[in-house]
Amino acid sequence: MKITRLATTAPDFDDSLQTLLHWSEDTDAGIEQAVAGILAEVRAHGDAAVLARTAQFDGVQAASVTELEIPRADLQAAFEGLPADQRLALTTASERVRRYHKAQAEACCQGFEFTDAQGNRLGQQVTPLDRVGIYVPGGKAAYPSSVLMNAIPALVAGVPEIIMVVPTPARRDGSSQGSRGERNPLVLAAAYLAGVHRVFTIGGAQAVGALAYGTATIPRVDKITGPGNAYVAAAKRRVFGQVGIDMIAGPSEILVLADGTVDPSWVAMDLFSQAEHDELAQSILLCPDAAYIDAVAAAMERLLPEMPRAAVIRASLEGRGGLIHTRSMEEACDISNRIAPEHLEVSAAQPRQWLPHLRHAGAIFLGAYASESLGDYCAGPNHVLPTSGTARFSSPLGVYDFVKRSSLIDISAQGAQALGPVADTLAQGEGLQAHARSATMRLA
Amino acid sequence: MKITRLATTAPDFDDSLQTLLHWSEDTDAGIEQAVAGILAEVRAHGDAAVLARTAQFDGVQAASVTELEIPRADLQAAFEGLPADQRLALTTASERVRRYHKAQAEACCQGFEFTDAQGNRLGQQVTPLDRVGIYVPGGKAAYPSSVLMNAIPALVAGVPEIIMVVPTPARRDGSSQGSRGERNPLVLAAAYLAGVHRVFTIGGAQAVGALAYGTATIPRVDKITGPGNAYVAAAKRRVFGQVGIDMIAGPSEILVLADGTVDPSWVAMDLFSQAEHDELAQSILLCPDAAYIDAVAAAMERLLPEMPRAAVIRASLEGRGGLIHTRSMEEACDISNRIAPEHLEVSAAQPRQWLPHLRHAGAIFLGAYASESLGDYCAGPNHVLPTSGTARFSSPLGVYDFVKRSSLIDISAQGAQALGPVADTLAQGEGLQAHARSATMRLA
Repeated sequence: MKITRLATTAPDFDDSLQTLLHWSEDTDAGIEQAVAGILAEVRAHGDAAVLARTAQFDGVQAASVTELEIPRADLQAAFEGLPADQRLALTTASERVRRYHKAQAEACCQGFEFTDAQGNRLGQQVTPLDRVGIYVPGGKAAYPSSVLMNAIPALVAGVPEIIMVVPTPARRDGSSQGSRGERNPLVLAAAYLAGVHRVFTIGGAQAVGALAYGTATIPRVDKITGPGNAYVAAAKRRVFGQVGIDMIAGPSEILVLADGTVDPSWVAMDLFSQAEHDELAQSILLCPDAAYIDAVAAAMERLLPEMPRAAVIRASLEGRGGLIHTRSMEEACDISNRIAPEHLEVSAAQPRQWLPHLRHAGAIFLGAYASESLGDYCAGPNHVLPTSGTARFSSPLGVYDFVKRSSLIDISAQGAQALGPVADTLAQGEGLQAHARSATMRLA
Repeated sequence: MKITRLATTAPDFDDSLQTLLHWSEDTDAGIEQAVAGILAEVRAHGDAAVLARTAQFDGVQAASVTELEIPRADLQAAFEGLPADQRLALTTASERVRRYHKAQAEACCQGFEFTDAQGNRLGQQVTPLDRVGIYVPGGKAAYPSSVLMNAIPALVAGVPEIIMVVPTPARRDGSSQGSRGERNPLVLAAAYLAGVHRVFTIGGAQAVGALAYGTATIPRVDKITGPGNAYVAAAKRRVFGQVGIDMIAGPSEILVLADGTVDPSWVAMDLFSQAEHDELAQSILLCPDAAYIDAVAAAMERLLPEMPRAAVIRASLEGRGGLIHTRSMEEACDISNRIAPEHLEVSAAQPRQWLPHLRHAGAIFLGAYASESLGDYCAGPNHVLPTSGTARFSSPLGVYDFVKRSSLIDISAQGAQALGPVADTLAQGEGLQAHARSATMRLA
């Protein structure tokens, strides 16, 4: 396997690193135009447009959008029909994710109010969104874990209604042609377990449009979250402002910061676990120990043939992977901050020693046992994380994404006397005399 | 003055309300194209492009971008040169805004960590952004209060470097042609007082590009906030993803919910204070008392001639204002939630009685003395608020906009044994075998 090797001592290291990291999202004019057309159609014709596009793209014929809703009893049946180990795994994951997000809500989503010396009461009220839409991809990238990770923070936030959309394209062989496409029982079970309120088997830009504008059957939501293909991403960008959206994700990334004390085959497999997502996924190792880097590379060669997704892993690692030899762990931390990775594993004997040096990352995995895959499924924290360096300024999906805040401004008669002249002076300075007058009118 | 009057009892009320609220942002293809060109230029040519565009658009000639930086001593001089009342007003406002945002940081920006039964430690680390850019418009809409409202939350968040850009276009008569355009001393004083680190006299798409990509002289930032014209808004949309941005604001709005107990001339002036911003600003009164609505209308007729900005106020109120007669205060609250206004004044004898009914608003002003203008300048809460109904899903600018969160996932040896099988099952269910293996490798 030919993985890019870099050393920070090389004179052209900065350029090489930039080349390795480079990724630019294609904005395809054809997709943009198609999506604009579909959204306009859904806005104008509602259910009829959704039905027509679902028949066209998913091969699913239905007489009404109501037929495309999955009754809650079917979700429950999907859950109860799962093998016991899957049921237990989903339940364990769901409980852990819920517990974590409850702790998060305590820490970050509290309102406040204080009273100042003039008796003014100032604060902020935190309220959940009224209704949220969750997009869940169908087909090969149908991830039940994503259902939990999107729905649970919204439910913990107190959102009273969650509408999930998931396309169920008909099988190519035509065997599922009709009003039912192919449904993924794990996805439906996850929706049941999380407590999603309604599920429609629609997808693509038409589903995003239906959630953003509302139709006769599908209620308009206030925010749409969840991953999707290029059409879904383009549609989410276009409806932003009409509704809230989460971040549009780029390729998934892992960065392992290794001090050379952890079994190299564990690190090799962690790099694989990112690489197996798709060919654009990025796996990078930063380590000050050249012999250890060789050991990880050797473990990768040894383990690759055992992997069912070996072809994707190889393509991803050869195309976008990197093994970077650093002068020190401190320097490795600096480079990690520059990259601001989605997933950061601190694979070190004393991992917390490095935490104060690490400023930017979606999730930080500490120690030999904290493999990214535990975080992806069941540790508790959210697996929807900022990609492509956006951890410099954005955060994991969380309860805070499903609430909003209103400032509370309660001014006493005394407060109006004290603040009126201040507002008057500043408003006059900005040439806004009605603002000034509105303050001075209230002076005794 | 001809202001739209509606009554909720009218059969076509819903349609009329929708017509009143309708506002669509023009996306001007010419502006889009110009902005794309300027951004590409700044990305490719850095300082040189910034200088060329600043000369072209602002009439300011400079040999280097360094010449366009205002030294901190000049900011201090601007502050010290202000009349005493302006200095005091700015200082009072700044202290109150700082105090409020410190309370906000306590309530919403704390990290957390807990340990579960298996000894896993899970939590979240909250860290400030490294560097933030603040856009401050020059010319007629130069608002020193905006400098405070954008800079102070960032500083309270712990952002170590704030770069402000403010265009200083040369006077039309050519008297300020050269390397210095027209500077607004209140804006510079506010920057000094807030503690902005560096100020460059550049503006437009070229300033947004410089902040997003960095140039030899202007450092790249992680987030850009602050209002601007259509070019600035288009540029911010385009660089989003490369850097974070705040919401793109629509026209400003006030909604007054009145029970008829407050002096009608106070409410009239509050409606004016919104209307005087520009012709697209929206002022709406909701009230169950028809006689009181008449009294407010009469007060407006009486007060309008006294207002220096009477022409703007009239155009705004006649074009987009509304006086809405409701069946009850409860119904008024429902309509307010549907509108999700930027500013909501509860002009009532017992304003807190209505608070539990109010779900969506940028800022809620409680009681007769809480005029919007106090909130705009000096009450303490932020005056950058969600517009055009986006309070359904978004929040005032706050300390939370200048921090980001990293999940912390610290798994014990025991935890890996408990969680490994769960991750294994779910990963197999998703067809991701390297994820599964990465978890099972760590089983004893």
